[in-house]
Amino acid sequence: MSFRICGTGAVQPALRLSSTEIDRRIGQAPGWTAQHFAIESRAVASGDETSSSLGTAAAHQALAAAGWAPEQLDVIIGACGVMEQPIPGTACLVQRRLGLGQSGIAAFDVNATCLSFLLALDIAALGFAARRWQRALIVAADVASAALDFRTPEASVIFGDGAAAVVLEAQIEQNDWRAYRFETYGEDAEACQLAAGGTRLHPHDDLPRFLAHAKFKMDGQRLFKATARRFPDFLTRLLAQAGLTADAIDLVIPHQASAGALEYLKRNFPQARKGIIDIFAHHGNQIAASMPSALHAAITTGRLQRGDTTLFIGSSAGVSLGGAVLRY
Amino acid sequence: MSFRICGTGAVQPALRLSSTEIDRRIGQAPGWTAQHFAIESRAVASGDETSSSLGTAAAHQALAAAGWAPEQLDVIIGACGVMEQPIPGTACLVQRRLGLGQSGIAAFDVNATCLSFLLALDIAALGFAARRWQRALIVAADVASAALDFRTPEASVIFGDGAAAVVLEAQIEQNDWRAYRFETYGEDAEACQLAAGGTRLHPHDDLPRFLAHAKFKMDGQRLFKATARRFPDFLTRLLAQAGLTADAIDLVIPHQASAGALEYLKRNFPQARKGIIDIFAHHGNQIAASMPSALHAAITTGRLQRGDTTLFIGSSAGVSLGGAVLRY
Repeated sequence: MSFRICGTGAVQPALRLSSTEIDRRIGQAPGWTAQHFAIESRAVASGDETSSSLGTAAAHQALAAAGWAPEQLDVIIGACGVMEQPIPGTACLVQRRLGLGQSGIAAFDVNATCLSFLLALDIAALGFAARRWQRALIVAADVASAALDFRTPEASVIFGDGAAAVVLEAQIEQNDWRAYRFETYGEDAEACQLAAGGTRLHPHDDLPRFLAHAKFKMDGQRLFKATARRFPDFLTRLLAQAGLTADAIDLVIPHQASAGALEYLKRNFPQARKGIIDIFAHHGNQIAASMPSALHAAITTGRLQRGDTTLFIGSSAGVSLGGAVLRY
Repeated sequence: MSFRICGTGAVQPALRLSSTEIDRRIGQAPGWTAQHFAIESRAVASGDETSSSLGTAAAHQALAAAGWAPEQLDVIIGACGVMEQPIPGTACLVQRRLGLGQSGIAAFDVNATCLSFLLALDIAALGFAARRWQRALIVAADVASAALDFRTPEASVIFGDGAAAVVLEAQIEQNDWRAYRFETYGEDAEACQLAAGGTRLHPHDDLPRFLAHAKFKMDGQRLFKATARRFPDFLTRLLAQAGLTADAIDLVIPHQASAGALEYLKRNFPQARKGIIDIFAHHGNQIAASMPSALHAAITTGRLQRGDTTLFIGSSAGVSLGGAVLRY
């Protein structure tokens, strides 16, 4: 299977909080957030900035980079961690904002929280291989600030809002999507959750209970353990699937989960010739938008070159581990 | 592309409301709801019934019908209209409830509101064709009652809660998934929406505004028009893609949108030899669970037989039209 990434885009909301402003917000001394979480600044959605507005801005960038008109797309895949609104999906809202509301171009969403973008890439690849589509747009946008609880710094200060988009086209003859792997371990589903907002808790029946669960909760240590103990074997299986050894990887484009997770990856995967993309300091964990934002940074800074073999890797609520090997 | 449906299951919550109980609830004379909306009864989730509990019960039925153990699955695709909770996805919760929490079996969600099940079938087919998976479970569960506004009967009394599941396996050599088509027209995105529950409206910042948008809104007439004016051409394109004429269809398995939508379909597609599956009276519109519940009914009543050519068809918020032709 194969595809060619023809353009990428990434945007952050206009409002930016420095780590010292975050310190003030959570009642800590200046420098505390930077020291404990390796954060310099975060972007926060405000006014009429939403997942679909930010995602559409990123999509325009990606289309411009590819030199495509929106009408050339065959499919729009929304790959957000949490939807802008439950009905309809974010991809439909992006379709309309792109001026495609009468086009009939297929628009749907996929969800694997922080791994949604990787999942969407694989679904695009599957559709290309079956000649279902020729050209795809993937939009990943998240507004984590909507549901953060600043009383728990580890589950709040590390998150940043943003969006990224990628346009890609089928490449039937090649085999550049070398491997894709996705494993879920539901036993740790509570390690990372936002319980209210779906159909389980009803604001009209029991408002206090709804509100008590309407902020994101994360047990960082449990999540890290659940992921780290499975990571080495997962990576071994992924590389074996690609038929590659670790030193064949030029560049690693990881989910930007936390400074600790990125450090863990740097220690445990030192082989990549061009290292690991780390945009955490000024982006934070942008949920599903993290990985494509890191991809966009890798391309626009020139670190990712055509012909490079790149490893996408990350974990998500669920808990899932996901990875892929792409010859760019 | 091809797959074999090896087992199906469908469940409804224990609590059932008759149409006269609905009449009482909305302050109408006995018989009003039945007369206006062709409703006899509806199931409503209560107690600890959730999308993942109902979905898991349906999954057990489907697995039993196929004679499979849960461990034999390669992938679990959640295909709900609205998630049980925003993080993590419903598929992860079902995975754990099936006793697969340590299995690593991939679990993720796809979303196209009422067409989520059809989308999931196609993604399973794409994955089978690429040998990504061999055996898949699709779970579609919705608890519409969580967000209904009974002051607007057309957007409330027609909905019922429930879940359905299908297990299917790859069938590489055949071409039974004859055609699949999905078209989105975002210009009518507001015709059918649930605005609060995602990242756009924040209960902690502006609670009254959040609550005002936390119930489902549907402009039935606009939705019907948006769908009906595109339906004939959509169907023509779908059948052309399958290389079939209308009289080659044995049975139609539609989304159970409303009594009016089902009547429209019966009038405009009279060709199907075995007719159209209509379970609306005692199920209502179960969002994403409607189509697989209708499929389950078609199989368990013997109306769908091996070798039959069946047409799946429906529309969803977005607005999208979706259809597929399967040789069962």
